[in-house]
Amino acid sequence: MTAEPARAPHALPGFARSTVDGYAVRAADTYGVSEGLPGYLTVTGAVRMGAAPDVTVTPGMAVSMPTGGAIPPGADAVVMIEYTAEAMEGTIEVVRPVAPGEGIVRADEDAAEGQTLIQNGRVLRPQDLAMLAAAGVTSVRVHTSPVVTVFSTGDEVVPPDTEVLKPGQVRDATASALAALITDAGGTPVLGGIVSDDPGALERALRTALPASDVIVVSAGSSVGTRDETANAVAALGPPGIWCHGLAIKPGKPTLLAECGTGPNGAPGVPVIGLPGNPRSALVVFRLVGMPLIRLVGGSVAAPPEPSARAVLSRDLASATGRLDVVQVTVSDGVATPLFGVSALLSVLTEADGYIVIPEEATGLDAGTEVTVTLYA
Amino acid sequence: MTAEPARAPHALPGFARSTVDGYAVRAADTYGVSEGLPGYLTVTGAVRMGAAPDVTVTPGMAVSMPTGGAIPPGADAVVMIEYTAEAMEGTIEVVRPVAPGEGIVRADEDAAEGQTLIQNGRVLRPQDLAMLAAAGVTSVRVHTSPVVTVFSTGDEVVPPDTEVLKPGQVRDATASALAALITDAGGTPVLGGIVSDDPGALERALRTALPASDVIVVSAGSSVGTRDETANAVAALGPPGIWCHGLAIKPGKPTLLAECGTGPNGAPGVPVIGLPGNPRSALVVFRLVGMPLIRLVGGSVAAPPEPSARAVLSRDLASATGRLDVVQVTVSDGVATPLFGVSALLSVLTEADGYIVIPEEATGLDAGTEVTVTLYA
Repeated sequence: MTAEPARAPHALPGFARSTVDGYAVRAADTYGVSEGLPGYLTVTGAVRMGAAPDVTVTPGMAVSMPTGGAIPPGADAVVMIEYTAEAMEGTIEVVRPVAPGEGIVRADEDAAEGQTLIQNGRVLRPQDLAMLAAAGVTSVRVHTSPVVTVFSTGDEVVPPDTEVLKPGQVRDATASALAALITDAGGTPVLGGIVSDDPGALERALRTALPASDVIVVSAGSSVGTRDETANAVAALGPPGIWCHGLAIKPGKPTLLAECGTGPNGAPGVPVIGLPGNPRSALVVFRLVGMPLIRLVGGSVAAPPEPSARAVLSRDLASATGRLDVVQVTVSDGVATPLFGVSALLSVLTEADGYIVIPEEATGLDAGTEVTVTLYA
Repeated sequence: MTAEPARAPHALPGFARSTVDGYAVRAADTYGVSEGLPGYLTVTGAVRMGAAPDVTVTPGMAVSMPTGGAIPPGADAVVMIEYTAEAMEGTIEVVRPVAPGEGIVRADEDAAEGQTLIQNGRVLRPQDLAMLAAAGVTSVRVHTSPVVTVFSTGDEVVPPDTEVLKPGQVRDATASALAALITDAGGTPVLGGIVSDDPGALERALRTALPASDVIVVSAGSSVGTRDETANAVAALGPPGIWCHGLAIKPGKPTLLAECGTGPNGAPGVPVIGLPGNPRSALVVFRLVGMPLIRLVGGSVAAPPEPSARAVLSRDLASATGRLDVVQVTVSDGVATPLFGVSALLSVLTEADGYIVIPEEATGLDAGTEVTVTLYA
């Protein structure tokens, strides 16, 4: 994410260039020529690629030009080779007139000296890299990638490489998926590991992570006790504290947004996101709330475009007003088919091609409604 | 890109889990209960997160359950805590009946043993990583990232870190942008540097790069001579040779597609893409032709979704039939405004929000036409 605009250190391309293969001429020498009445010009030289022209174009003269070559002094247009023919050794006939400037890119046509090449707060796209390279700008000030520490909590949660589960145990499904989403949002994920439900354990973990984190994400255990534990731990770390506890989103209701500690000289604290315990709810809500937050902390000024598709809903969808519903769907032949299943099921997410959002004010959507599906890339 | 389907080594979640906080019961014990006529059950224990249940639910009994806890033997449903109240120490009243299976995720509801979790030929999405982690699958066979060697040619081309240009020189704008596009397509870019227009130089460079490359991209100098040089070099390396030279795309016409050399035991040769000399043309055509090729070589079975927007065209656009036109546009308030400028101008690409494609059969698009803009991410 750029942290300042990048400017052109000099005009680009920096010299007038030919856009075609042909002959550099004085446009006035071609006025009135036609197939029936060609004009004749004397070829006095040739421009070589990457070299300064060593000839000047005077009235009645022409200089052979490659595409991209530097326009020699005196010329104000380039006639395409297709509209010329060699009349005799050293003389060409021209069968189409050119206007001044035709076949030429001006020295400052791509950028004037000092012009902004790339705006502030922008992820550099491939073409932006091309423009910077063309301008000789090989280093750009960018925002540091935010360090996002991820904790998983819950006595039932064990690392993904646990081969055999004991009854009641589940592997940590959320942390590695969150790491991928954090990376997508421009952050640098740091996996803080699994924190037990012991009172005080999460508070200690947060306190340790605070100085080295720009954002902290706690993926909660799903029991009532663990859910409150994140709020307790954040509260114990002192003001500014909790922004909100509970969002009108389904799935994702038990989400906690908070701010922990204060930076030096009263700087803002570290944002903390407490996610629901179900991996599916956690990933849904993190896309909607966590990724934009990380982009914001990373200096982004605009949300990036997401892939989407228009599709027709295959069946009625109920929704409660006052709550934003996120419904996973498959998309095929322009039809969006909702996937159902309790929020504990990850397979609903892995089968989905994308999701639709039913806004707070809606009471549901009828079958046949055209919807916008945000597609998973 | 996955190279084989990933399967569940065991059923997931692996044990029947509660989806709510409440009490594990025998559903039959709740039939007919209501607010006015509650049922009474004896609480015989509590399930702890991450531990095997140490109690059995017999008729008339209930066991306290956290969300995600393992269902104890004998229970076939979980009553939400909201529909219960403590009647006296060790006894609850239940005011709503539950059906068998209610409040429970079956042991194989997310995946049965051996079931395909992730299809072949797929870029792993965050939720796929979550599912694999949940299943304990910590390694997956994937296709190697294709090594894509990029050469820039042209005597006028100098490295981007050249501070002061001599007259007629331009910095290599294309290579670093191609590297970014190659990375986006799942490839590993290797910058082969700038090759001079000397006869034989490109052939030698290609011959050296062939054994270590899965794809080779040559960004051509823009002069006539250099344009043909890629074709000559490919031809010199022998059959299978050139697939096509020239595409009906604007910009991007002088594109070359070829195959160089042969692998061991008659394996196919290495695909070579010769790109037009203008950085803008090169980047446009590489998105349309080069990136899909790299994805294919990398084992992809489907194109990834791209961000797009529907917009109304601000003005008429002319187009020749039989040629695919790629027009750069800005998009604002649902209006797509075409950006014009000769193909040598990179600023057209850096100002664009995306592009529209006018298909071969169209003679142009009228102002007011609704178009799909592919957005630059």
